[in-house]
Amino acid sequence: MMTLEELYAAGRKTVIGSLTFTAEDIIRFARDFDPQPFHLDEEEARRSLFGGLCASGWHTSAGWMKCFVRFWAGEARRLAAEGLHAPRLGPAAGFRELRWLKPVYAGDTITYAVTLVEARALASRPGWRLNTILCEGENQQAEPVIRFESKVIEFT
Amino acid sequence: MMTLEELYAAGRKTVIGSLTFTAEDIIRFARDFDPQPFHLDEEEARRSLFGGLCASGWHTSAGWMKCFVRFWAGEARRLAAEGLHAPRLGPAAGFRELRWLKPVYAGDTITYAVTLVEARALASRPGWRLNTILCEGENQQAEPVIRFESKVIEFT
Repeated sequence: MMTLEELYAAGRKTVIGSLTFTAEDIIRFARDFDPQPFHLDEEEARRSLFGGLCASGWHTSAGWMKCFVRFWAGEARRLAAEGLHAPRLGPAAGFRELRWLKPVYAGDTITYAVTLVEARALASRPGWRLNTILCEGENQQAEPVIRFESKVIEFT
Repeated sequence: MMTLEELYAAGRKTVIGSLTFTAEDIIRFARDFDPQPFHLDEEEARRSLFGGLCASGWHTSAGWMKCFVRFWAGEARRLAAEGLHAPRLGPAAGFRELRWLKPVYAGDTITYAVTLVEARALASRPGWRLNTILCEGENQQAEPVIRFESKVIEFT
């Protein structure tokens, strides 16, 4: 079984996928979880400080997860085809310093990425490793829109 | 216009609402954003380390926002009825140290709360205030399931 560190060199950014935020998707998410005028209505959004309909930050955040789950399933298949095993990852327990850096407007396509920042074996738990990853998203103008740091446990 | 600090004494926890996570809600959110087996399928979840169908952490997080938006609209009406004005809040730019402390299982009801931790005037921007708030959620057994810290700008 490969470790994350063997698969992904620390400091190298890996694109995990893209997501286009349609007005319909933005409004549907906002109705459920963040019903503020600038996430719900084109006209009201235009008059708001954002100047246009934009996604809830929670929607932008969940978009990272959506891309990661798909990416990781693909990686497991890719490695299996080479006769290798992807490490098993534990569920995330949270994250640090999440920043919504710019609004995500209707029609924007966000490209998400992950970078392994640090990896170490857990002395207290043989076979467990603790990874720090940087999670990012940028829009089609290559402007960063979201970043946060997460810890991922892996079992080898 | 009242400031947040005048309305909510620092250190006092205010309940902002409750949300019941049905299996249907959990699965629908997971299909869109976090399609992992323990968020999608009762049977597979039972065999997972969670032992039962549970919500994506991003779903639990967005639930805080859902309750806060409704709470804040209610506060604005309550204050208006007393002839007072709620402060205008800026959009959040992110948050710190989010922790998913326990799984949220199908059928759980999460009660969300907010506590003003610190409030200060921004010397550089007259009329602007920067608040640090602690955001929490606990299940029907009063077990904490989520917590994070956020910064909220207000304009007075």
